Amino acid sequence: MTLEEKLAQLWGVWVGIGEGEEVAPNQHEFSEPLPPWDELTRHGLGQLTRVFGTAPVEPLTAARTLAQTQRDLVERTRLGIPAVSHEECLTGLTAWQATVFPTALAWGAAFDPATVERMAAAIGAQMRDLGVHQGLSPVLDVVRDYRWGRCEETVAEDPHLVAAVGSAYVRGLESAGIVATLKHFAGYAASRAGRNHAPVSMGPREYADVVLPPFEAALREGGARSVMASYADVDGVPPHADPRLLTGLLREQWGFAGTVVADYFGVSFLESMHGVAGSTGEAAALALAAGVDVELPTVRGYGAPLAERVRSGEVPEHLVDRAVARVLRQKVELGLLDEGWSPEAPAVVRDAPVDLDPPQVRAIARTLAERSVVLLEDRAGVLPLDAPGRVAVVGPCADDVYSLLGCYAFPNHVGVQHPDVPLGVDVPTLLEAVRAELPGARVEHAAGCGHAGDDRSGIAAAVEAAQGSDVVLAVLGDRAGLFGRGTSGEGCDADDLALPGVQGELLDALLATGRPVVLVLLTGRPYALGAYADRLAAVVQAFFPGEEGAPAVAGVLSGRVNPSGRLPVQVPRTPGGQPGTYLHPVYGGRTDVSASDPTPLFPFGHGLSYTSFAYEDLEVDRTASTDGAFQVACTVRNTGGRRGAEVVQLYLSDPVASVARPLRELVGFARVELDPGEAVRVELEVHADRTSFTGPDLRRRVEPGALRVLVGASSEDVRLEGTVELVGPLRHVGHDRVLTTPVRVQALPRG
Amino acid sequence: MTLEEKLAQLWGVWVGIGEGEEVAPNQHEFSEPLPPWDELTRHGLGQLTRVFGTAPVEPLTAARTLAQTQRDLVERTRLGIPAVSHEECLTGLTAWQATVFPTALAWGAAFDPATVERMAAAIGAQMRDLGVHQGLSPVLDVVRDYRWGRCEETVAEDPHLVAAVGSAYVRGLESAGIVATLKHFAGYAASRAGRNHAPVSMGPREYADVVLPPFEAALREGGARSVMASYADVDGVPPHADPRLLTGLLREQWGFAGTVVADYFGVSFLESMHGVAGSTGEAAALALAAGVDVELPTVRGYGAPLAERVRSGEVPEHLVDRAVARVLRQKVELGLLDEGWSPEAPAVVRDAPVDLDPPQVRAIARTLAERSVVLLEDRAGVLPLDAPGRVAVVGPCADDVYSLLGCYAFPNHVGVQHPDVPLGVDVPTLLEAVRAELPGARVEHAAGCGHAGDDRSGIAAAVEAAQGSDVVLAVLGDRAGLFGRGTSGEGCDADDLALPGVQGELLDALLATGRPVVLVLLTGRPYALGAYADRLAAVVQAFFPGEEGAPAVAGVLSGRVNPSGRLPVQVPRTPGGQPGTYLHPVYGGRTDVSASDPTPLFPFGHGLSYTSFAYEDLEVDRTASTDGAFQVACTVRNTGGRRGAEVVQLYLSDPVASVARPLRELVGFARVELDPGEAVRVELEVHADRTSFTGPDLRRRVEPGALRVLVGASSEDVRLEGTVELVGPLRHVGHDRVLTTPVRVQALPRG
Repeated sequence: MTLEEKLAQLWGVWVGIGEGEEVAPNQHEFSEPLPPWDELTRHGLGQLTRVFGTAPVEPLTAARTLAQTQRDLVERTRLGIPAVSHEECLTGLTAWQATVFPTALAWGAAFDPATVERMAAAIGAQMRDLGVHQGLSPVLDVVRDYRWGRCEETVAEDPHLVAAVGSAYVRGLESAGIVATLKHFAGYAASRAGRNHAPVSMGPREYADVVLPPFEAALREGGARSVMASYADVDGVPPHADPRLLTGLLREQWGFAGTVVADYFGVSFLESMHGVAGSTGEAAALALAAGVDVELPTVRGYGAPLAERVRSGEVPEHLVDRAVARVLRQKVELGLLDEGWSPEAPAVVRDAPVDLDPPQVRAIARTLAERSVVLLEDRAGVLPLDAPGRVAVVGPCADDVYSLLGCYAFPNHVGVQHPDVPLGVDVPTLLEAVRAELPGARVEHAAGCGHAGDDRSGIAAAVEAAQGSDVVLAVLGDRAGLFGRGTSGEGCDADDLALPGVQGELLDALLATGRPVVLVLLTGRPYALGAYADRLAAVVQAFFPGEEGAPAVAGVLSGRVNPSGRLPVQVPRTPGGQPGTYLHPVYGGRTDVSASDPTPLFPFGHGLSYTSFAYEDLEVDRTASTDGAFQVACTVRNTGGRRGAEVVQLYLSDPVASVARPLRELVGFARVELDPGEAVRVELEVHADRTSFTGPDLRRRVEPGALRVLVGASSEDVRLEGTVELVGPLRHVGHDRVLTTPVRVQALPRG
Repeated sequence: MTLEEKLAQLWGVWVGIGEGEEVAPNQHEFSEPLPPWDELTRHGLGQLTRVFGTAPVEPLTAARTLAQTQRDLVERTRLGIPAVSHEECLTGLTAWQATVFPTALAWGAAFDPATVERMAAAIGAQMRDLGVHQGLSPVLDVVRDYRWGRCEETVAEDPHLVAAVGSAYVRGLESAGIVATLKHFAGYAASRAGRNHAPVSMGPREYADVVLPPFEAALREGGARSVMASYADVDGVPPHADPRLLTGLLREQWGFAGTVVADYFGVSFLESMHGVAGSTGEAAALALAAGVDVELPTVRGYGAPLAERVRSGEVPEHLVDRAVARVLRQKVELGLLDEGWSPEAPAVVRDAPVDLDPPQVRAIARTLAERSVVLLEDRAGVLPLDAPGRVAVVGPCADDVYSLLGCYAFPNHVGVQHPDVPLGVDVPTLLEAVRAELPGARVEHAAGCGHAGDDRSGIAAAVEAAQGSDVVLAVLGDRAGLFGRGTSGEGCDADDLALPGVQGELLDALLATGRPVVLVLLTGRPYALGAYADRLAAVVQAFFPGEEGAPAVAGVLSGRVNPSGRLPVQVPRTPGGQPGTYLHPVYGGRTDVSASDPTPLFPFGHGLSYTSFAYEDLEVDRTASTDGAFQVACTVRNTGGRRGAEVVQLYLSDPVASVARPLRELVGFARVELDPGEAVRVELEVHADRTSFTGPDLRRRVEPGALRVLVGASSEDVRLEGTVELVGPLRHVGHDRVLTTPVRVQALPRG
């Protein structure tokens, strides 16, 4: 391979996918003008950027264009190597007409890795059918600041939950042969004040104990084959230029053999944002040396600037070879270099219309949505709505499809920016779903106000609707969009956690009517509800629940669905006082030395059900070796009147350790669904490795001593408590440590 | 010395100082019950805690009690060693009747180390006269989050300014023979969300480049002899238990030979707050081993629990000996062990009433206050007030002495908690000062509302006063107090930067009158003013300016004083979006990838004058060696009509570095006072060491390459710009590096 042929494997371009369009580079709005296609790809093309996700094109048409592009590369270039085709796929394939699943924060709320794995397998199967090889998901950032606009893309504020759910997603996607991409490696979620791309102030212990574990788990337990570097510098070092992270840790310690891809423009940001490079070529040299194999989305540094530096001897060619070898190895694995490989994906071969939203896939979206809805409060016992009579459904999210979908869903990613783009998929709004769910009710609707902005002109009509009702459903929250086009999503960072725009005023006005108000939140982040909580009849929280989200929420309201979601993030009392999550030592919570009280309104793991559960008969091994495991078992019984699911949560608390440790930390959970009277025995096997943390010597260790074992229905609602004593020497643990907590659930005889 | 005699040197107790009171331990509200005095001090007593600062006692009486206590220790205990007597002294000696100087944030605003040094020398002289040996000041924490209640105690958000002013304070105090105590070592100001004692998320580079430099400077350039450990853990490690910090860095690398004292209860907090110790004794063992020599304020771990551990061999006695040697060495230095040392301090010997607030000391307080007042905005040209006619002076701070004084001033530290305590010192309120300053004006007053709380009942009267006026002085801000007794001060952390209580509503109501409103802020932190800025006629910001603060502010309003303060912290636009300071790389500021815009309303270093200054004739050496210095010189001319002072600020910007660097960083400044038409040449010598930072290898380095040299009137108002090229090899620098930027100011012939 010539140098140019090698380098061409390391970058991609957006390609046009319009009906009947010539194969050509797509002059994407974020991209510089590119030379004509033939010239651009003279030496080959390693990567194809987002073939499906940038315009509303019939999937079969897009797949045909993709095949045509691949055939062109195979037939016209000297080496005839096809490209790896990438697409976003967080809430489903980011393509027109594709199923929009709940957003990642909703996966966290569902505490249901198995359904997430099924979802990802379905997404992967669609991608494979269309000729896409790599999915730019999942996001494994552990939430550190709810103000961050990408909070919605994350699973949770707890590393164990992110690891469990994230690994499941990866297993599902990889089971379909699709390369899963773990992002953003690492630290991005802790950007200062939640501002996208802003610096991360963090030390190595927090990094190792909170940020990295989900990545480690998703590589080892999930088998992910790609990793995307993160934008934000950590303590001054941008990950795209960090060889200790991308090579030392990821490759040498963790043994990762896949590809590391740049986040979009992340290579050139080393020059323009971080100032660690004086030119694009220098940025490319730094990134390549650090271990970034592939520049995305388009060619900037990895083209001529890098070629020049290799020619001049400034960049050793073996660094290029290293990256090329990784890319080609992956192409071999994917079968792209097999004899007889055909550019035509199965869908193109079938040559029949492709349904990217068939009933069996929608069913997964619906299950996940239903399990993700969190009933936060039912103060007045108004839920489920019983013979509701007159229902006022008000608020800007009530009749808005975009309020149901995450930022990376095609309708929001492209549609919100181009309102003339047809939705492509059937998404009932909550208003429609409520009408369908409550056919006997007289439903009135008023938006009241917009998602954002300060237009108060609609509040009066909303109040009037409320006054004429028996119950008010205040449907408030976010609309996701990119870079300020929404109130949540990439770039849509919030200064505080007040409800956006004038929605708080609308809510106050509705509460002033004296009618019972059920707050229904469709959001991408938690909002502060302390100012309203004791006046609300009930609160239902959904995190962008996807195309089946409205029926799921309506089902919870009507009682058809028994809510079983649990908070993957906390709901704060006050809009300020951020950041802070449940992972804090004692003095990170309420103390008598600070007037600022971070106690949440609803804690991590919280969520109610229409039935009730009893926790009984805790058994905890009294001791365990510092290199062994201990068993925790308890009985959970449905003591209420209807079938429902409980999320049994196991927390550990280490009262004395060599560094300050969180008050409690989730180490295992089990979602159990029980009929009235039914009981199960839940057994968790906790390896001592799961108690490990990074000590003052920066090495991960298991320390002997007593641990409190807390089993309960949330991080605060502890129902059973025990103690285990770890005995034996302090033990340093490495990257072969146990990362999971096996759970066994056994039915018990009725009694 | 017996073990008990050694340990007794390492702790202190509060002692009673009441008139005619027996020598006895003071049962302080924060302290456990102690045994009777004779028993408690049977083996000696190393330290006396806050003899003057806890009750309103005549200074001479308190000094007599102190002398009596010392005599008792000398005469009754076997070894006869007197105690080191400590007192707080941040804004002046924290004693009844003592001068209350401006708070530290005002010192930063004055950009005037020389006056701060004079102030500290005066404070030190008073302490020495009364028999106090050690002052628990200055606070060298670099502001990282304005929400932190102790923001007022810090000098600035810039390490160079903190270092310059902090070192000056130390020099002043030490020049009087008083041991200065640098606190809080280190990282405290970056507590999560500004919550007092909360964990600090920070990596080693930020720690080394932002947090530590003021301490290094104040030890080397100031000669401080004591250091106080910080409460907050940094990346999990509490400083009180960190041998790398207190011994490795402080002693072994920096060569510090003085004492390390615990922050109050910091030793026992290792057990109760950080959970790194299972008992008080274990906490004591950890702290002693880490390098905490003295437990304050009272005996918990360093008494019987530590003795027991030494006896059992768990704690090696040489660690006790190490601490005792440091304490005794300091007592020798202080002359306490000299033959003929007398417990009676000079004031006791004189036996005449002590005046702790004489005119010459008040004069320093006044100078510093005047120089610290910042004129932020004079939109309507309404200032200085010219023939003002009817003036409405409204707001909760207008007629409140406590709004002028910092949290560690005696009247706030003790008086706000016990309102029956007489003030002890003459502090005119701003209302009184305005009346005195504008004898021809008809001054009306209304408080409008309280500092905190939601009582709106006074707003109507304030509006009425405003309506009947020609100009409104809205005097808003804080009242300092401990632990929630104020809106600023230790423990008074804010969730956001909205004006406290309903003061924002009061301001809106005043603005609605259409009268020109001059906002006068008396605060301990900056507040967000974006919602009001374009409606205000003018804005004057004072940071708790002390007992002479009101005449100083009134003087600025009347024009008697030409304002010359500059912002040591930024004034934000919005209440949320914290934390963030001016020290950020490009993507820490406003970007197109985040909807959250941290651009301040008024930037670091900003402040207006009633005259104007021109910057001319920049000369910058074109090159300098990476181990040499370069010269920066410019001419500053008073181009306006009256005498005034300008703060010439020199910033460096490093466009390409091996880690992400702040957009700009202050490296030098000069306060110059000029008559109309007068000009000076300001020359700054910048050593290459001053460009050093901590590289990816965690070693401090000077990197070759071009630097932008920015000279101006604020961090944003750059008047002159040049470039210097550092040539030569990358150089690692150690703890002998140059820490200061010498400045020379030369008068120029009138032109």
